[in-house]
Amino acid sequence: MSFYDASVPAFQQILGSLSGLLTKAEAHCKAKNIQPDVLLTARLYPDMLPLSRQIQLACDFAAKGCARLTQSEVPSTPDTEKTFEELRQRLSKTSDYLKTFKPAQFEGAETRDVTFPAGPERTITLQGQQFLNRFAFPNFYFHAATAHGILRHNGVEIGKRDFLGVS
Amino acid sequence: MSFYDASVPAFQQILGSLSGLLTKAEAHCKAKNIQPDVLLTARLYPDMLPLSRQIQLACDFAAKGCARLTQSEVPSTPDTEKTFEELRQRLSKTSDYLKTFKPAQFEGAETRDVTFPAGPERTITLQGQQFLNRFAFPNFYFHAATAHGILRHNGVEIGKRDFLGVS
Repeated sequence: MSFYDASVPAFQQILGSLSGLLTKAEAHCKAKNIQPDVLLTARLYPDMLPLSRQIQLACDFAAKGCARLTQSEVPSTPDTEKTFEELRQRLSKTSDYLKTFKPAQFEGAETRDVTFPAGPERTITLQGQQFLNRFAFPNFYFHAATAHGILRHNGVEIGKRDFLGVS
Repeated sequence: MSFYDASVPAFQQILGSLSGLLTKAEAHCKAKNIQPDVLLTARLYPDMLPLSRQIQLACDFAAKGCARLTQSEVPSTPDTEKTFEELRQRLSKTSDYLKTFKPAQFEGAETRDVTFPAGPERTITLQGQQFLNRFAFPNFYFHAATAHGILRHNGVEIGKRDFLGVS
């Protein structure tokens, strides 16, 4: 077992399941004659981020998390997606990016220092394992589960099994 | 680094932050003259589980996850909590239970088979690392983030920093 096994597959599972959630959301829009933008811009509260941003942020925490753990160049992706299909492509490209990592790149990463921005003028340094546990995973799952919550709250017929990607 | 470091601290962080979320929710109820039950029974959709069950389930996935990874007796806790304080005690007891685990108990757990129930008549067997990544973590974070979403949707002034436990 490598530290790779502790990180990349976990992200991949949920990136895939989010794509499935969007497909069900899009079908729901068609079936109920709802404009896709209604769901894509839906929020759980006025000052929360909308569905589309939750998906983009989940992608970013996965991609940047793996980049930082492996001392790779941290990718930067413009947040331009406006449709379900474009968001699925963002998820798919993120998944493809994660597939480029090799287990060897993660060797020793659990104890290697990771320095990352925490706000505009501050950085935090954590060991790789702590970075994954305390920062990358909780942020990633937070945005993924919030995306699920937004769709669920809007009546899309999904459940935890869709979130887990086991249905 | 032991497999212990990959699991127990991650659960502990969010168990603590959930307790903080409940404290803010309780204060919100007092400030706005809202009956606590209104939030404790709040749901994002009629057939979703209410806040109290989201907290109980987060506790269960943390406690049972660590028990299964270490081949310990799997604890069973009746879901009797009816107040914010009782739910904080449940979180606190779960955290105390996790503190009883020693890193040595997790040695080799990443490759050891874990067999767990998946519905009333089926079990699944996964290696420990996969059990953590594919089952315990996503279920745990799902219920924790959904609890956050329920409170946020009801106007409690919390944000992702509260969920992460860094505010």
